[in-house]
Amino acid sequence: MLRVALGTAIRSLGSNRKFPVLFRKMASFCQEERGPANTLQYRIYYKNDKGQFISPLHDIPWQVSKGPNVYNMVVEVPRWTNSKMEIATKEPLNPIKQDVKKGKLRFVANCFPHKGYIWNYGAIPQTWENPKHIDPNTNQGGDNDPIDVCEIGSRICKRGEVIQVKVVGVLAMIDEGETDWKVIAIDVNDENADKINSIADVEKIKPGYLDATRSWFKIYKIPDGKPANVFAFDGEYKDRDFAEKVIQETHDFWVHSHDGSVECDFAMQNVSCSDSKFKTSCEEAAKIVDGAPGKGPAADITDEKAEKWFYV
Amino acid sequence: MLRVALGTAIRSLGSNRKFPVLFRKMASFCQEERGPANTLQYRIYYKNDKGQFISPLHDIPWQVSKGPNVYNMVVEVPRWTNSKMEIATKEPLNPIKQDVKKGKLRFVANCFPHKGYIWNYGAIPQTWENPKHIDPNTNQGGDNDPIDVCEIGSRICKRGEVIQVKVVGVLAMIDEGETDWKVIAIDVNDENADKINSIADVEKIKPGYLDATRSWFKIYKIPDGKPANVFAFDGEYKDRDFAEKVIQETHDFWVHSHDGSVECDFAMQNVSCSDSKFKTSCEEAAKIVDGAPGKGPAADITDEKAEKWFYV
Repeated sequence: MLRVALGTAIRSLGSNRKFPVLFRKMASFCQEERGPANTLQYRIYYKNDKGQFISPLHDIPWQVSKGPNVYNMVVEVPRWTNSKMEIATKEPLNPIKQDVKKGKLRFVANCFPHKGYIWNYGAIPQTWENPKHIDPNTNQGGDNDPIDVCEIGSRICKRGEVIQVKVVGVLAMIDEGETDWKVIAIDVNDENADKINSIADVEKIKPGYLDATRSWFKIYKIPDGKPANVFAFDGEYKDRDFAEKVIQETHDFWVHSHDGSVECDFAMQNVSCSDSKFKTSCEEAAKIVDGAPGKGPAADITDEKAEKWFYV
Repeated sequence: MLRVALGTAIRSLGSNRKFPVLFRKMASFCQEERGPANTLQYRIYYKNDKGQFISPLHDIPWQVSKGPNVYNMVVEVPRWTNSKMEIATKEPLNPIKQDVKKGKLRFVANCFPHKGYIWNYGAIPQTWENPKHIDPNTNQGGDNDPIDVCEIGSRICKRGEVIQVKVVGVLAMIDEGETDWKVIAIDVNDENADKINSIADVEKIKPGYLDATRSWFKIYKIPDGKPANVFAFDGEYKDRDFAEKVIQETHDFWVHSHDGSVECDFAMQNVSCSDSKFKTSCEEAAKIVDGAPGKGPAADITDEKAEKWFYV
């Protein structure tokens, strides 16, 4: 009950609070790589500070106690890289893996003038963009992934790193008929974190970055033969309050996926969500990782798309 | 005499031909790294196909026989990197090294929206932008370096690689009061090499690249407190014929630096320029490299400028 009370003290969005906020203290997580990098076998698993395997999607809390408006973010794609790494929502313990298209590791096209992803890109854990939920703003269902974050700080994060970010706004992207919110946030430890508290601040400190971000999302699938993406609100960024409501909503969907009230096709195993129907033991979690191959030396990247520039 | 005749057959610019074109056949070169990467000691030395140490500046021919309009290029900075690697004009055998400013390895600022150099960047050997020569177009002396090349192909070259490029045009940059021509060229083996034969072709195949290139050169030193660079011809690109005349001119200055008619402060040692006053033996060349430290493991890059983005 204390934990719920704490949550209420920190936030007052009046949203679903039946599911307890699991823990809000700064916690440390570490990564364990399995399978050789740049192969289909590559995975990044996660451990908590007790050395127990966890799911980064379910066991890392969405919010942190460092301040209001601060969330955990799992970095999937570091800035300026284009290996499409992502939390494997359908694999037990949800390791990070490179997405696969037609049996090949997926690289996102470098669209001129951009090189790779232009932010540290990742997701807020304990969230779910429910495909059955038709968003009234986009008129589309969710993309069946945790909510995405573009971290705009100066530092290039490490793949798989867990950082704390301050949310400043959100872009309502519609990607192939799915709602796919892009939260704009900055690492709380960034040199500009104090100066950037709103979308207007981003434009002031990093002029052109928001326009580039919208353009990036608009065109990034065109080299793959897909149409340009579109946006709700005429592509305008919504403010921090709006962004936080969206995040809360996606967290609520995640809560309901665990309490059994909404069906979700994620691999749901977790070791710490006490009210989850899918909580498992640390031993069971360890067994999942035991089955994964050893790390081994990284393979060479042979797909020329990794380094090609596309002029859209 | 045969070699001179060949040169005349291939080119007909009517320029200085007193100095023989040393060899025009495709030759292969290999690199030998010395000193740990990312340290002040790091160097890339060059060997010819007999395994003898050479100077990449003096011993690699400027032109190649693969076709008219084709030149050798020594790649100093691969695309999307920003370690300011360059042929060390003042060091014996002219290895590639990272430029040093105030005792620190120099990184060129990543100016948003660009990441590092946006082409494979390097130099045509056997050329010299003579600082005593006031160019009538720029009204400035040369920058005392070999002539620079932006290679616009799809592949990211390896640092130090020697490639053959087809020249398509040139930009007349004036950098801190010095003439600093930027030759635009494409790897003869690039997938688009057949399609790109002029500045107009670049714009057609890679729309926006030329504007981005001009903008890149204009702003790249602003984060270091320097003014914006300017250009002759109102920043317009000059065509291939013009570019070839400029290259020929810089080659002629290099020729005169070797025959003793013009003074040059480069380290002039070479092992193959038969008319050079500075030709040395292979044994002497080997001794120069003998004095260099072993390769060793690469150091970590600690300068945050390597990964920071500057919003100019």
